[in-house]
This record gives sequence, structure tokens and C-alpha cells, in this order.
Amino acid sequence: MSTPRTDVEQVERANTAYYEAMERGDFEELSSLWLNPSDTSDDDLESEDEAPSVSCVHPGWPVLSGRGEVLRSYALIMANTEYIQFFLTDVRVSVSADTALVTCTENILSGGPSPDDSDELGPLVGQLVVATNVFRRTADGWKLWSHHASPVLAESGEDEDEDTAG
Amino acid sequence: MSTPRTDVEQVERANTAYYEAMERGDFEELSSLWLNPSDTSDDDLESEDEAPSVSCVHPGWPVLSGRGEVLRSYALIMANTEYIQFFLTDVRVSVSADTALVTCTENILSGGPSPDDSDELGPLVGQLVVATNVFRRTADGWKLWSHHASPVLAESGEDEDEDTAG
Repeated sequence: MSTPRTDVEQVERANTAYYEAMERGDFEELSSLWLNPSDTSDDDLESEDEAPSVSCVHPGWPVLSGRGEVLRSYALIMANTEYIQFFLTDVRVSVSADTALVTCTENILSGGPSPDDSDELGPLVGQLVVATNVFRRTADGWKLWSHHASPVLAESGEDEDEDTAG
Repeated sequence: MSTPRTDVEQVERANTAYYEAMERGDFEELSSLWLNPSDTSDDDLESEDEAPSVSCVHPGWPVLSGRGEVLRSYALIMANTEYIQFFLTDVRVSVSADTALVTCTENILSGGPSPDDSDELGPLVGQLVVATNVFRRTADGWKLWSHHASPVLAESGEDEDEDTAG
């Protein structure tokens, strides 16, 4: 059964595909999910920017800009990650014309290579991370324009009283 | 002299206006900079979402969704911030049709109210934060759709070798 899917469903699938590519360590698939300059249509070129440039912030990292820098970071992360699983919660999709914004909580369980070079997995680490993922509609489906993930440091609950801002 | 400005210049101004409103503690101005459901045009309503919903992540916080929750967080931050200054660096703007993505480094200097209720300022704190700000073009100018700010925890430098991902 292949009924046409709504934008929101398509974006959710693209978002899920991103995390599944990370879980499988599938660098080719991950690369194909990120916006490519050739994906953009002519009317995007009205600004003085040549093409929308991708950007990425991993938890605790500075900003990475451009496909080269962004994809290199994933190659590095995959090389240092033996096991990673994302349990997504609070997935919210907001679509406006050809852009979609997804926010979600990434409950991450990950492990690096074993320290002693054996076949065993390194220690598993749990992380609570929130992400804002921005997608652009292209002829080849919804593609990642920006990924910004950050650790949740404040205690959870409704009444935050942090005085940090930004 | 009022020459027409490019999209990138207009977006830079909207981005600067956001941080200046924070510095002045100007809640009214800040509210006017965030996307309002009435700002959206008819063709945005093709999806099953009613209107693009705003979202916000302050450094270390979980995701806040919707104008009510987002604006309340700013009221709270302003009430607990006696002094805040943003020194923006690495500002990059990427425009695609009616959406703009800004990444920047927020070098923040802030102080809360004095602990002893005197007129003195509380201790000043420096923070290194990176932000991804998403703007939508509206009839009333570029408006914030999403703000995601997070602390930079990794050591700075070109060769990050963190194994955290997300």
C-alpha cells in the first residue's frame, strides 16, 4: 500500500533515517541525507549566498559549517563509536513551505571501542541530548540543512529557574 | 540613505536585534521578533500543521515549544539577569527562499542580581555558547522560528576527537 504521505510524515521519516544511519554507522547513507548544493532549486539563488550551506553542532562542540567539515565530523564520530542507539522522544515537526523544523529528545546509549583492543565493547554511556534538525524539501526528498544537538544539563521538570541565557 | 538591503543583511539585522533586545531586557521587542501564527502566509497551511510552531533551547535546557512556553522562558531569564552582554563572533548566514539559518558564537558575559539584595551586581560569569537561529521571512520582516543555544564543552581547536554524537 503506497498512499501519498503528508509533509509531516515525510519529514519524520527523513529524521528517523538520520538516526538509523547513525546507529548503523552508515556513512554513505548519512552523507546522502545532508543537503547538497546540487539539491537546491534556481529560486534559492536570489540571495548573495551561492547555495544554502549546511551546519552542525554536536553536543558540547563548536559550530561546524559546510558539507566537508560536517561530514568529516561524522566520519570521526563513527570511527570512535562502536555502538550507539537513539531512543527518540518528544518528536515535534513544524513545516513551513519548503522548510521543516524538527525538535526531539535523543536518549542516547553509546559505547566506544574497548580500551584494551579486545572484541569486547567499551563501557556504555547514557546521555540526555536535545536536537533541532532543519530540513529542506528537494527533488530528492527532505534533506538536512542543519543539526544542532546539545546536552540537557538543567534538572528536568516544568519549572526551570536557570539564569543562563542565549 | 536607505538603499534596499539584501536578504543576508536583513537577516543579520534581525539576528543582532534579537541579542540587543536580550541585552536591554526588552521583553516587548523580543516578543515581536519571534514568529507569530498571524505572520504566516496562506501557502504555509498546506501541511497538516496549522502554523509553524516556534521552538527554543537555552544552553543546557530541554526543548521549549510554542510562543507561550518560549516567551515565558525569556521573562524568567530576564527576571534573573541583572546584566548580560553578547559578543557575537563567527556569524554565518545561509538563506534559502523564505528561510534563513544563522549560526554564531555567543561570547556571553552575564551577572545575576546581587545575592544580598543590595544595588551591587552579582558575580559576572563568562560563557562560551554556540547558537543556531532559524528565521522566516514575513510581511513584517524576518522573524525567529527557532533558537537553539548550547554550551561549548569540548576544547576548542581544529581537531576534535570527542566520541559523543547526536
